[in-house]
Amino acid sequence: MNIHDLDTPALLIDVNVLDRNLRKMAQYCKDHRLTLRPHTKTHKMPEIARLQLQHGAAGITVAKLGEAEVMADAGIDDILIVYPLWGEKKWARLVDLARRVRVTVAVDSLAVAAGISKAAKAAGTEIGIRAEFDTGFHRCGWPIAASSMDEIQKIIALPGLRWDGILVYPGHIMGNQTIREQDIEREDETMDALFKILGSASIPYPVVSGGNTPAAFASHRFHGLTEIRPGTYVFNDRNTVDAESAEFANCALAVLVTVVSTSVSQRAIIDSGSKTLSADPLLSGDRLGYGYVLGHPEFKLEDLSEEHGHLTIPSGTKINIGDRLRVIPNHACTCINLHDRVFVVQGEHVVEEWKVAARGKVA
Amino acid sequence: MNIHDLDTPALLIDVNVLDRNLRKMAQYCKDHRLTLRPHTKTHKMPEIARLQLQHGAAGITVAKLGEAEVMADAGIDDILIVYPLWGEKKWARLVDLARRVRVTVAVDSLAVAAGISKAAKAAGTEIGIRAEFDTGFHRCGWPIAASSMDEIQKIIALPGLRWDGILVYPGHIMGNQTIREQDIEREDETMDALFKILGSASIPYPVVSGGNTPAAFASHRFHGLTEIRPGTYVFNDRNTVDAESAEFANCALAVLVTVVSTSVSQRAIIDSGSKTLSADPLLSGDRLGYGYVLGHPEFKLEDLSEEHGHLTIPSGTKINIGDRLRVIPNHACTCINLHDRVFVVQGEHVVEEWKVAARGKVA
Repeated sequence: MNIHDLDTPALLIDVNVLDRNLRKMAQYCKDHRLTLRPHTKTHKMPEIARLQLQHGAAGITVAKLGEAEVMADAGIDDILIVYPLWGEKKWARLVDLARRVRVTVAVDSLAVAAGISKAAKAAGTEIGIRAEFDTGFHRCGWPIAASSMDEIQKIIALPGLRWDGILVYPGHIMGNQTIREQDIEREDETMDALFKILGSASIPYPVVSGGNTPAAFASHRFHGLTEIRPGTYVFNDRNTVDAESAEFANCALAVLVTVVSTSVSQRAIIDSGSKTLSADPLLSGDRLGYGYVLGHPEFKLEDLSEEHGHLTIPSGTKINIGDRLRVIPNHACTCINLHDRVFVVQGEHVVEEWKVAARGKVA
Repeated sequence: MNIHDLDTPALLIDVNVLDRNLRKMAQYCKDHRLTLRPHTKTHKMPEIARLQLQHGAAGITVAKLGEAEVMADAGIDDILIVYPLWGEKKWARLVDLARRVRVTVAVDSLAVAAGISKAAKAAGTEIGIRAEFDTGFHRCGWPIAASSMDEIQKIIALPGLRWDGILVYPGHIMGNQTIREQDIEREDETMDALFKILGSASIPYPVVSGGNTPAAFASHRFHGLTEIRPGTYVFNDRNTVDAESAEFANCALAVLVTVVSTSVSQRAIIDSGSKTLSADPLLSGDRLGYGYVLGHPEFKLEDLSEEHGHLTIPSGTKINIGDRLRVIPNHACTCINLHDRVFVVQGEHVVEEWKVAARGKVA
């Protein structure tokens, strides 16, 4: 099938660009002896998770238990859930999962670890545990303080758990903006302080996991990191380009759209709004716009209704109903989560259709 | 089943509040002799569409052809598609649909109308047509000018089409802010100018369709309106409350969430982020926050990650991992589109589970 035969809107993945992105990150991790455990929340597709493993990933990362179940069903056998799982229902599902695959959970409370331990012990299985620390993003994670070590030591002593090490999510410096030297230095010092505190408390940390896409290629500069969990690097998006972490030529994901209305002067309406592209804002610069129209920097995707994209076009531009465009979304992860399927393309050919199998797995 | 037995996050619809919302709008339309053709993009569920029809709606409105197909499959037999449908594939699906149900399409170009006409004529069927005019929102719609009438007359003369009248979407005055007197007056004058131009060109307009939720209850003040297409009124949300069109007690849709982390001081993390609530902003006031925590005006849902909601809580507040809260989303329509199912509740009882059957029908 040719791209021209697709109805729109349609999500396209350029398999050549995807392949380049996968190779680049794999090579970087190999060069710097970092374990790659990519975050699959970005794509939610076992097909891409398998490609990541083929390119040397040691396992995958997910945010939700439902995503882990989909990936395990597809044969992925080493899964890190970076999420504090709470409640008897989730713990029961977690031990079911642990019977099938190697599973590890990041926790930041004794309460969550104790619940998991109890369920694992009762089921006669073992769940990997990592402790999350807050290096400054202030979302999850114990504070980096000697007083945090008491709970960690209690967790290490719990039955049914396999102590794995520590985990950080430095969203405050890696959150889609150009990485600054002083931020890297400060983060490195913060991590160093954490290592000292862990050492004083005689807490081992075989794994030190961190990193996301915008700062992924600076990971070797963080002292002590053994693993990174980038997600968006497989596709890249307008935000990673804006953060100077990629160029539009490195964006593997685009939405194929059609111009459906040109009634209003200096405007063209495309058939993709916030329910197709997601309303996630641009995270840096002028923060304006909801996507980049490939080959048309002069078009501004100024506003989104739910099903309409409002393109502002320079006066005199020739644009017609039926014209097709490709839009790079601001945020690949939330865009893909709106879709049931993607079309894998090579040049103008549609070579495969993949199901977004873990889409909507919120629990 | 009891609500406490549900795992979270879970989308809840309070059936008593839903019923009150349905009755209120039905009564308003009856009192003012307005046809009610609710926009089902809000809920995407045939169950609620059927309730709307039981409460006197004349038919339903949808944005996308895929939504129309789902509703027709569920037995809804009068559907308005407020969207310019373009392309052979869509026209083929449209005439298939027209063989099963009464279907009408809003157009704002001769090109789209001609495509539909050709397909309808070839299939020996008939498609209803309405002309959309731009009263100031500048999204779709012909300008209100004598020069627009040429195309309208050509459309009326096309075979295979059933001329139905006109349609407006006054998003510029109804877009989630308190309606101002002068805006109503100006819109009324704009509509009046349109009627005069149509009259001069001898174009009949049996249907004059307009309106959305925030201004729905002011619809009788727009001279000449025969029909309204509100969507959000079935649920209401933080935006309609902020626009003073409803109160939180009138919000039928809430996300049941669980506190999963309290490691960071003055913060509680809930298990719902932008992939559960949607990142749609508040459209008026300070534009801050991503939802309202029922019963806790002192909690601020300050930020969303994809799967984490960042609640800021006053110091000294007692909040624990495992606590459950209900969050009213900023925008019901984009929130529900992220979910496969909803739980219908009455008090603490889960009385039904509905599938969001038209979710993700982007084409």
